[in-house]
Amino acid sequence: MPSYKVYEDEEFVAFLDISPVNYGHTLVIPKEHYTNLENLPVEMFAKMMVVVKEIGAAVKRALGVGGYNLILNNDAVAGQVIPHIHFHIIPRHQGDNLRAWPSGRYAEGDAPEIAEKIRVELE
Amino acid sequence: MPSYKVYEDEEFVAFLDISPVNYGHTLVIPKEHYTNLENLPVEMFAKMMVVVKEIGAAVKRALGVGGYNLILNNDAVAGQVIPHIHFHIIPRHQGDNLRAWPSGRYAEGDAPEIAEKIRVELE
Repeated sequence: MPSYKVYEDEEFVAFLDISPVNYGHTLVIPKEHYTNLENLPVEMFAKMMVVVKEIGAAVKRALGVGGYNLILNNDAVAGQVIPHIHFHIIPRHQGDNLRAWPSGRYAEGDAPEIAEKIRVELE
Repeated sequence: MPSYKVYEDEEFVAFLDISPVNYGHTLVIPKEHYTNLENLPVEMFAKMMVVVKEIGAAVKRALGVGGYNLILNNDAVAGQVIPHIHFHIIPRHQGDNLRAWPSGRYAEGDAPEIAEKIRVELE
């Protein structure tokens, strides 16, 4: 359970991650149980993001930071350790040495094929 | 402009990141210009997340992956390169060697102080 709560309303709670990437690293969770984005109803998701947006702005002001990363690790393979959906708000500073994951390139002809596969699923 | 579009509606467009962290790395953006989360109206944010959720699920099905990271780099210090708000959907695989950022610990007494600073901004 949250030790250092920063926010609570009827549906959501936010608290400090006790193993922070940076000081002020905050987790936002719904009180009801949803494992991941696939089973979070869109209305709950919309409400959750309003809360996330407010807390993100509060973290910026509180810590005097210029920005943050908002991260959802959706499913175990993506690094989701606890199977209860949670957003990470990670405050960022110049020189904090957190690097974006290395980016690659598509081999010739692969990009249009991948795009088509995704498009088909959205039709 | 997007080269490999996977989705478009009246308000949003999604396309492949041409420098993908993993194949199928997709960006979702609003057509209207908003630099970051602070100036994106909550109603737009809610609509955007519905689109993001659908595209995330489509990416999972299309590429047969078990999960993805959903990332918003909010502001330059957080790695936002283009000042037009965009969500990253990064498909993940076992053994893709993408590691979470290292986590730390709070020094004695710091966590309650940081939590209090954020709480105050939310009151």
